[in-house]
Amino acid sequence: MPEVYVHAVEGRSIEQKRALVKDITDAVVRHFGAAPDRVMVQIVESPAHNKAKGGVLFSDR
Amino acid sequence: MPEVYVHAVEGRSIEQKRALVKDITDAVVRHFGAAPDRVMVQIVESPAHNKAKGGVLFSDR
Amino acid sequence: MPEVYVHAVEGRSIEQKRALVKDITDAVVRHFGAAPDRVMVQIVESPAHNKAKGGVLFSDR
Amino acid sequence: MPEVYVHAVEGRSIEQKRALVKDITDAVVRHFGAAPDRVMVQIVESPAHNKAKGGVLFSDR
Amino acid sequence: MPEVYVHAVEGRSIEQKRALVKDITDAVVRHFGAAPDRVMVQIVESPAHNKAKGGVLFSDR
Amino acid sequence: MPEVYVHAVEGRSIEQKRALVKDITDAVVRHFGAAPDRVMVQIVESPAHNKAKGGVLFSDR
Repeated sequence: MPEVYVHAVEGRSIEQKRALVKDITDAVVRHFGAAPDRVMVQIVESPAHNKAKGGVLFSDR
Repeated sequence: MPEVYVHAVEGRSIEQKRALVKDITDAVVRHFGAAPDRVMVQIVESPAHNKAKGGVLFSDR
Repeated sequence: MPEVYVHAVEGRSIEQKRALVKDITDAVVRHFGAAPDRVMVQIVESPAHNKAKGGVLFSDR
Repeated sequence: MPEVYVHAVEGRSIEQKRALVKDITDAVVRHFGAAPDRVMVQIVESPAHNKAKGGVLFSDR
Repeated sequence: MPEVYVHAVEGRSIEQKRALVKDITDAVVRHFGAAPDRVMVQIVESPAHNKAKGGVLFSDR
Repeated sequence: MPEVYVHAVEGRSIEQKRALVKDITDAVVRHFGAAPDRVMVQIVESPAHNKAKGGVLFSDR
């Protein structure tokens, strides 16, 4: 609490994820005054054929 | 913006997904006045053993 | 089932919402083979000061 | 309607899931007065390398 | 962790909500082996004019 | 794309929100390689009587 969900097309490395959740957590602690241990961040990955922009699947671009 | 999430049990074909995201995007553009390129649609698929109706998993039906 | 969530900045009329949920429901029935009465659509509205693009709140644009 | 989403790190057995969705559905029926057949429960599983607490991925703990 | 989201049309009393979050939390603790203090439950309420079944808004039923 | 949702109990100021969405957006750009204008951040606020930890509503704490 707070809980943060990041929706992205799959394909990022573990290093990218590790760095992202660290920086997002720090931002929530700094600006929302949350205790670090209370901040949850979840990356919700989606295959490119399950996500679209402008009505076109990312797998069709 | 807007962002649309469709939660469904897995198993639809790429053709079904392609058609669905196209028509949903068109509906958002037509009724909410959004620029097409700004509309995001994501299909969030779930295995049948992770979703239930009436307290019974779809994999148990 | 399926369940559809549309995230948008608040301000659309009831007529716009009525038309959008109708067309989205039709699209899910047509392409995913769902029974109409099983399709749920929810519009999740957000105040302009709670949503951002490019790191800038919509209320600051 | 209502719709319930349970976000958890992956790894629970089908028996655990079956019991959880049953008890959550019963609770929604009992306290919110919903018809059982109208209650949807979905378990959204996440790999341990996609979820973090305190800025640290569960796969790094 | 886990995090539970209950989507419902607005109108339940505080007593109903208090009872629901208690029983859902107990179910998650019992079946998923989570520490009680780690279980988050959030009720996401929606006005009747923002939610539809079968393509018809709840406010139009 | 990506889309970020921050779930929190209501009560933060516009300054806190402005700072948070800026820093989260910067983190997504830096670590996930997204174009800034493509990053959406939404703060989903909840009244204290709609959110619970350990089975107890925040309004009862």
